[in-house]
Amino acid sequence: MEAVNTFELSVEFKERFQLALEEDDNAFIMDSLDGVNSADISAFLDEFSSEECKYVFDLLSVETGAEILEELEEDVRGEFIKQFTAQEIAAFVEQMDSDDGTDLLYDMPVSDRNEVIRQIHDEEKASNLMELLEYDEDVAGGLMAKELIKANHNWNILQCIEEIRKQAENIEKIYSVYVVNDKEELIGKVGLKKLILANDRSKVADIYDDELVSVETSTDEEEVANIMQKYDLEAVPVVNARGKLVGRITIDDVIDVITENAEEERQLMTGVSSDVEEDDSVWRISKARLPWLIIGMAGGLVGAQFMGFFREEIIIVPALAFFIPLITASGGNVGIQSSSIVVQSLANPNVFADSMLKRLLKVFFVAVVNGIILALMVFGSVILFMSDQSLAATVSIALFSVVLLASFMGTVTPLVLNRFGVNPALASGPFITTTNDLLGLAVYFSVAHLLYNL
Amino acid sequence: MEAVNTFELSVEFKERFQLALEEDDNAFIMDSLDGVNSADISAFLDEFSSEECKYVFDLLSVETGAEILEELEEDVRGEFIKQFTAQEIAAFVEQMDSDDGTDLLYDMPVSDRNEVIRQIHDEEKASNLMELLEYDEDVAGGLMAKELIKANHNWNILQCIEEIRKQAENIEKIYSVYVVNDKEELIGKVGLKKLILANDRSKVADIYDDELVSVETSTDEEEVANIMQKYDLEAVPVVNARGKLVGRITIDDVIDVITENAEEERQLMTGVSSDVEEDDSVWRISKARLPWLIIGMAGGLVGAQFMGFFREEIIIVPALAFFIPLITASGGNVGIQSSSIVVQSLANPNVFADSMLKRLLKVFFVAVVNGIILALMVFGSVILFMSDQSLAATVSIALFSVVLLASFMGTVTPLVLNRFGVNPALASGPFITTTNDLLGLAVYFSVAHLLYNL
Repeated sequence: MEAVNTFELSVEFKERFQLALEEDDNAFIMDSLDGVNSADISAFLDEFSSEECKYVFDLLSVETGAEILEELEEDVRGEFIKQFTAQEIAAFVEQMDSDDGTDLLYDMPVSDRNEVIRQIHDEEKASNLMELLEYDEDVAGGLMAKELIKANHNWNILQCIEEIRKQAENIEKIYSVYVVNDKEELIGKVGLKKLILANDRSKVADIYDDELVSVETSTDEEEVANIMQKYDLEAVPVVNARGKLVGRITIDDVIDVITENAEEERQLMTGVSSDVEEDDSVWRISKARLPWLIIGMAGGLVGAQFMGFFREEIIIVPALAFFIPLITASGGNVGIQSSSIVVQSLANPNVFADSMLKRLLKVFFVAVVNGIILALMVFGSVILFMSDQSLAATVSIALFSVVLLASFMGTVTPLVLNRFGVNPALASGPFITTTNDLLGLAVYFSVAHLLYNL
Repeated sequence: MEAVNTFELSVEFKERFQLALEEDDNAFIMDSLDGVNSADISAFLDEFSSEECKYVFDLLSVETGAEILEELEEDVRGEFIKQFTAQEIAAFVEQMDSDDGTDLLYDMPVSDRNEVIRQIHDEEKASNLMELLEYDEDVAGGLMAKELIKANHNWNILQCIEEIRKQAENIEKIYSVYVVNDKEELIGKVGLKKLILANDRSKVADIYDDELVSVETSTDEEEVANIMQKYDLEAVPVVNARGKLVGRITIDDVIDVITENAEEERQLMTGVSSDVEEDDSVWRISKARLPWLIIGMAGGLVGAQFMGFFREEIIIVPALAFFIPLITASGGNVGIQSSSIVVQSLANPNVFADSMLKRLLKVFFVAVVNGIILALMVFGSVILFMSDQSLAATVSIALFSVVLLASFMGTVTPLVLNRFGVNPALASGPFITTTNDLLGLAVYFSVAHLLYNL
């Protein structure tokens, strides 16, 4: 078994390859990459400079080059393709499925795109690309490929297989043949298994399955992902507003959507602002991380200014200062938990969800339960360790209020962000955490001020 | 087009259905669910009590019941199947692919499992299930199904199609026919497209593709997901340690792995300790959230005790208290960012990654760059707004030290957790955040103590 996973990505091989590049040992380069899966070559070339990669590309066939380009990460690819002429890129794009070609063109400035499309000889491909570029990147239209096998319901199985034969060259993976009526409207599908087992003379109309899930070109990519995941689909047909079959989305593209969204959410939560990886340069990592740190620091400075108003209280009762971290940490934790639950339910909408009022009431009750338990524990602890009743009352009342307030903020913020089309996961990120810190301090010192002046 | 997505999950329909349940209107129940996709029925039944669901199940065919059971969420299902006898469950399991059947059995106590397996009439199915139950749930062996189409390389295409015909009933989705030699070792595959287009008299040996990716039974589920995603596979064959073909993993199961892992990571980060959703009860949500809140609170109490040692400093320089939130927030942010980058690189291992020493050095330099920038900004701000040089020096030196320390902790903790087989994402969660808070306070007040006693 000559499995592709026998391609050993080892440090030794990398060094040997580097040497071959320096010595223009083209035979070694071509031999060692021959038959290797493009995903592996792509991951391997990631270790070399753009110029070195370009050198390797020139040695490979256009087909292989196109496959490798498909696999490259977007940010790397956008830079890398600047080394090619429009004519060279057009040659790669002609080898790709229309969705992958569109993805590549998205990475380029608009003027370069048009130049590339002009250089494409296959007119159908060029018009497909122009059509796909019209859609937003994050809807079904922007994810779909034009390549698919469709059959008229009046055809017989032999005609169907003939059509597959005709299209086979252009389509890498066939899962189903989509069935359309004379108006080109999608009416069903025939799985390949059924096609293999059917009698050659059967008509498509007799064997097709009319229960199928389709999406519209305007369907949001996350909804496409939810639908494909829910119904365990490996491909979903895309129709336009009038029900006409216009494209097909395959599961590999949707998996990319799922992982990219999880990644984006993580970035919003941790405040690492762009695609940084551990092997990026010190400066690049620092630059990506600084914005959140600066927001947090600015919040801390505002908090310091604010606490300046309570200098007297702190001098009289220095123990008040001891509980600042308890208050801010609890507020932060409650806020992140609340927003996380809301973000989750926004990602998996449920038609039977309670009304907004009921949801807010429930959040309120959860906050009351948590708040009372935490406040009682803190009250007991302060009495036990510090024997100071006013302090215990201040800290526990403030903690209870902070839990309530942070729950409310953590629930409402992602809902408001979502309403305005902003990713709600941002609510678990820097701005809100910092705001929660400040609100917590305000509540704490206001309570202290009130109680100690009673 | 009778698309499954025309099944309207509306509040009105739910009320009508509820009424039908109360009035034992079996005709309405059966009619309204007829032809509806099992994933939709499953989501819909989630809204009703276990007893009501059981009533509906008894009206549906065993096939439909089995499909719905496959779609139910694990925690709901574990409870729900308690209502069925071992014999009833066995009937459902017989309708399922072996991987789904195994998943269902995993949800049951071991003694009940064995009882169910004894009730299964199909001996091959029973032995397949017993084999699959031997594997851990989180390796390829625990994910795979025994159902697949395999062909000996000496067969011709007609024999291959005959085999598909024989197996077709049991296998929902065929992507490829796997090719084995006389020792049952996996040597390649034939895609369905190729099979359709091939001449009936061709031999499998002439047309099969010997470049294929396979995984071993012991491969970790995350690695399986990475491999399938990297090579855009919709199914991957599983071999045992001696290269014998033993099963197949399909992409739908792997998508579940990907989303579950993202979910688990989110839960570890936000400290919501079990599968809670917005529509769970107030008490259930509170209970899930309390553990982290209590950890955070306990950390806050320890911090308060600790700051008690610095009561004198705070009375003399109350402004020291003002910067506590700045110090703890910055430490927390730096720690989460650092651990997030490490968690990411652990999930996507790179053979060309730098050595551990080099990685730690890089983390150190990034921390130095960030620390210096933040410290300078804070120093300037304190001078500007408070005109207090010792305070400015104290806060900025402490901040710089905290950034360094939190970077180190955030980097090392996930690595250590991972080494001991614990999910490294825990490092972005409650324990570490709380520990970072305490370390930050310790550094801050130690610096203050040193500087003010100089």
